[in-house]
Amino acid sequence: MKKIENFEEKTIERTDIFDGSVIHVFKDIVALPEGGTASRELVFHQGSVAIIPITIENKIVMVKQFRKPLEKTILEIPAGKIDLGEQVDPKKTANRELEEETAYRTDKLIHISSMYMSPGFSDELLHIYYTDSLEKVDHPLLPDEDELIELHELTLTEAKEEIKKGTICDAKTIFAIQYWEHQHN
Amino acid sequence: MKKIENFEEKTIERTDIFDGSVIHVFKDIVALPEGGTASRELVFHQGSVAIIPITIENKIVMVKQFRKPLEKTILEIPAGKIDLGEQVDPKKTANRELEEETAYRTDKLIHISSMYMSPGFSDELLHIYYTDSLEKVDHPLLPDEDELIELHELTLTEAKEEIKKGTICDAKTIFAIQYWEHQHN
Repeated sequence: MKKIENFEEKTIERTDIFDGSVIHVFKDIVALPEGGTASRELVFHQGSVAIIPITIENKIVMVKQFRKPLEKTILEIPAGKIDLGEQVDPKKTANRELEEETAYRTDKLIHISSMYMSPGFSDELLHIYYTDSLEKVDHPLLPDEDELIELHELTLTEAKEEIKKGTICDAKTIFAIQYWEHQHN
Repeated sequence: MKKIENFEEKTIERTDIFDGSVIHVFKDIVALPEGGTASRELVFHQGSVAIIPITIENKIVMVKQFRKPLEKTILEIPAGKIDLGEQVDPKKTANRELEEETAYRTDKLIHISSMYMSPGFSDELLHIYYTDSLEKVDHPLLPDEDELIELHELTLTEAKEEIKKGTICDAKTIFAIQYWEHQHN
C-alpha cells in the first residue's frame, strides 16, 4: 500500500469569484505535492447548526420549507446558519434557531457531532445537537422574515415513511433519524 | 400551528456567477409566496456517490486525502463526483470510484440512501452504497491524475477513534460508520 509523506496542496494563485451573504466562492490554482498543478473550486461558508428535538410524546419536531436549490418543499430538522459573532459558541445559534423555528426551548442541548457537509468543495461545518427536554415558549423569537416554515411532529415510523416518500431527503435529517432510532429508542 | 398553502419561491431574476468544472453558481432574486422578495445563492453540482466497503475481515476501507477547502488531510469513505453521462445510473460511478480509489471491486452494491448534502444553498445529491462483498483487482483503474490518496482499512473501534481525533470529520463518513455499526455488526 502506497504511503504518502506529504499531501498538502499549496495555493499558487487565488481568484475571488463571488462574495455573497451565505457563501464566498474562490478558485485556486494549487501545486500538487508530487508535481504539477490543479484547479480547485472552493465555497466558504460560516458554518451551521441543526437540532434533533424530541418531544415528551417521543416525536421529532421538524420544519417544512421550500429549498430553492432543489425547487422543492421538504421536511428537515430545525437548522440554520451561524451568524457572524456566534462562531465561538455554536450552541447559542442552536438555541436561537430552535426557538425561532419551533417555538420550543431547552436547557439541555447535547452536542452529537460536528461534520463537514461536502469537503470536496466546501468548508461548511454543521454542528448537530440533541434534546429530549423541550418546553413550549409563549412568545417565541420570530423566524427570519424571508423564512416561511410549517411545523410538524412525527413519530419514528412516520419519519421513516417520509424518507421513503422523499419528503425527508437531506443528509442532516436522515442522519438525525438514524441517530434517534439507535440511540434513544 | 400555521398551515401554509403555497411555499414556492419563483425566480424573478437569475444571475450566472461562475460556471466551473465542479460547481455552477447562480444568484436569484425570488418572489416570496406571501409577498416581498429575497435573494438566494445557489450552487449547482452534478451529484456524487460514496461507497461503504467492508472487507471480509470486517474492516471499512477508507481513503486519506487532502481537502483544499479545509486545508486538512482527512479519512473518508471512497467517493466521487458523477461525470456527465453517468447521471442515469449513479451505481456505475460508484463501481468506478470503488475500483479507482481502493483497487477493490464488487458485484453487490446495495443502495442505502440518496441525500442532499446542503439543501440551503446546494443541490448536490449524494448516493450512498454498501457492500461487504469485495474482491481485489490485479490491475485496477487508475485514480484521477490530480488525486493523491492513501488506503486504510479500519475496524469499527478504530474508525470511532478517528472520529474522536477529528481525522474522520465529514458527514457521509460519519453517517456510514453509524450505519455500519447498527446494520451490520
